[in-house]
Amino acid sequence: MTPKLVIVGTVALDDVTTPFGSVRRALGGSAFYGGIAASYWTSVGVVAVVGKDYPEEGFRILESRAIDFRGIDRSAEETFAWTGEYTYDLNTAITRDTRLNCLLSFNPRVAEHYPNPETLFLANIDPEIQGKILDSLPVRPRLVALDTMNYWIESKKDTLLQVLRRIDLLTINESEARMLTGEFNLVLAARAIRALGPSIVVLKKGEHGALVFYEGGVFASPAMPLEVVKDPTGAGDSFAGGLLGYLTVHGHHSPEFLKQSSIIGSVMASFCVSDFGVIGTRALSLEEISSRIREFGDLTGFRQIDYEERRL
Amino acid sequence: MTPKLVIVGTVALDDVTTPFGSVRRALGGSAFYGGIAASYWTSVGVVAVVGKDYPEEGFRILESRAIDFRGIDRSAEETFAWTGEYTYDLNTAITRDTRLNCLLSFNPRVAEHYPNPETLFLANIDPEIQGKILDSLPVRPRLVALDTMNYWIESKKDTLLQVLRRIDLLTINESEARMLTGEFNLVLAARAIRALGPSIVVLKKGEHGALVFYEGGVFASPAMPLEVVKDPTGAGDSFAGGLLGYLTVHGHHSPEFLKQSSIIGSVMASFCVSDFGVIGTRALSLEEISSRIREFGDLTGFRQIDYEERRL
Repeated sequence: MTPKLVIVGTVALDDVTTPFGSVRRALGGSAFYGGIAASYWTSVGVVAVVGKDYPEEGFRILESRAIDFRGIDRSAEETFAWTGEYTYDLNTAITRDTRLNCLLSFNPRVAEHYPNPETLFLANIDPEIQGKILDSLPVRPRLVALDTMNYWIESKKDTLLQVLRRIDLLTINESEARMLTGEFNLVLAARAIRALGPSIVVLKKGEHGALVFYEGGVFASPAMPLEVVKDPTGAGDSFAGGLLGYLTVHGHHSPEFLKQSSIIGSVMASFCVSDFGVIGTRALSLEEISSRIREFGDLTGFRQIDYEERRL
Repeated sequence: MTPKLVIVGTVALDDVTTPFGSVRRALGGSAFYGGIAASYWTSVGVVAVVGKDYPEEGFRILESRAIDFRGIDRSAEETFAWTGEYTYDLNTAITRDTRLNCLLSFNPRVAEHYPNPETLFLANIDPEIQGKILDSLPVRPRLVALDTMNYWIESKKDTLLQVLRRIDLLTINESEARMLTGEFNLVLAARAIRALGPSIVVLKKGEHGALVFYEGGVFASPAMPLEVVKDPTGAGDSFAGGLLGYLTVHGHHSPEFLKQSSIIGSVMASFCVSDFGVIGTRALSLEEISSRIREFGDLTGFRQIDYEERRL
């Protein structure tokens, strides 16, 4: 059976250094982070490739979250490995080394494993591959979401623009949105992106949360101010996983559910950054999640103000 | 009669250049911006000094907002003049020139004009003067709020620390909060500032809104994503004016009213940045304000999520 949400992306081994510590060969990657975050909300399948050096622990974690990983190919090469560093400004990763390894011959067989997902998340990979995956599916998923990065905007913009025409939701960083559209103002940038295809644009702003632009409105999904932020790696993927997991089950294209889904994205991102790798998200209890959702309610909720009543 | 809210600060003439235009000798200053924003919510008195070159129009605008300006001294010098520039990153002002002029001999006579305000806002001036004002008042106001800047943190930190012990609410930029406390993490910085005196700390984050830390919680007051942002000058003062104006009338120290007050701060800041100087805030209709408040409700409001109910 096809899981409701299928994520195509990377499974990686990350060496990460932050002011609060460092990890070597931490289990990571966009599909790994996104899948774990989504798994609290819907059934998830992951399409990716790992190398011969990939530790069994990665699969055990996916198993513990009931994530379908039939879509993960095992290659004879080494696993995709990223080395990055963050200074006190945890918003910006400094890439020290990228070894694509087995990712170079990644040929995701989505249709073969999962022919009819309700939601398809094409995490940040080559837009050419993203397009081919859409071509391969017998039925278009109800919701197609996509992530990308500055590298593809610079090197494969035309291909990326073609794929954007075919999707419903784009997640993108502030600076990448500006790069893609040439608009500095984020409202204008989001509008320009929506004109390119996706009806929903999620502008990721790191520790400042995300802005979700949709037909007729915008929602500001806050980031939880946390005392302990150890490692921002995977925050964007966890946000997307939480958002898409919730949206898949609870309602496409309804502004109210889109807002709730964004909050779930913020919730999962807040757990992600609290520790290295997926330590913060891989084994959350119902109580921890419920309590964090309530904290988000307190963080931005206010009783509506009646100006005429309140004016002196 | 003493107005309920008294603001001590600057009245200035600003030369401002942004990517969207420029103005010369625009009516500005912290007390001017703050007073106008607050005047929609409570009675306001302003204590400041202007020079012989100050245009009558400034007083006419204060008059039109029913602001008491008996506290504005007229000096024989020139008016305080600031020249600043913003690039596309509208979060950071680049100061090109500062002429203190009459501000050098500013001797605010608060007690004389307004002996018993409910709320006193000591906008960004020399902390030595801020302390003397507190000394001079026969009764401590119910709420004392203060703003400061990097210059005072660097040059008069001890005096500033003494004043902080005597106040209830501090408004401060992110980077200044870090400078003042040596803590990079904003939650820790806010906690450190609260330990110095003020029970409420408002961390201003420019286009990312503000975080309001209070006993037992934190509120994220968003900034409205606007298509047109012409000039961020005065946004922080307009935020403080709106927040304090509302708080003065509707309830000190209640978390719920503090949250509503922060939203009113964000509302007034959003009007401020939409045009140069006080063009955006000086003549708002009830309908414009009501409608913007509703927009803020839509921007962050979401129906509370019941995890157990929502889980697949």
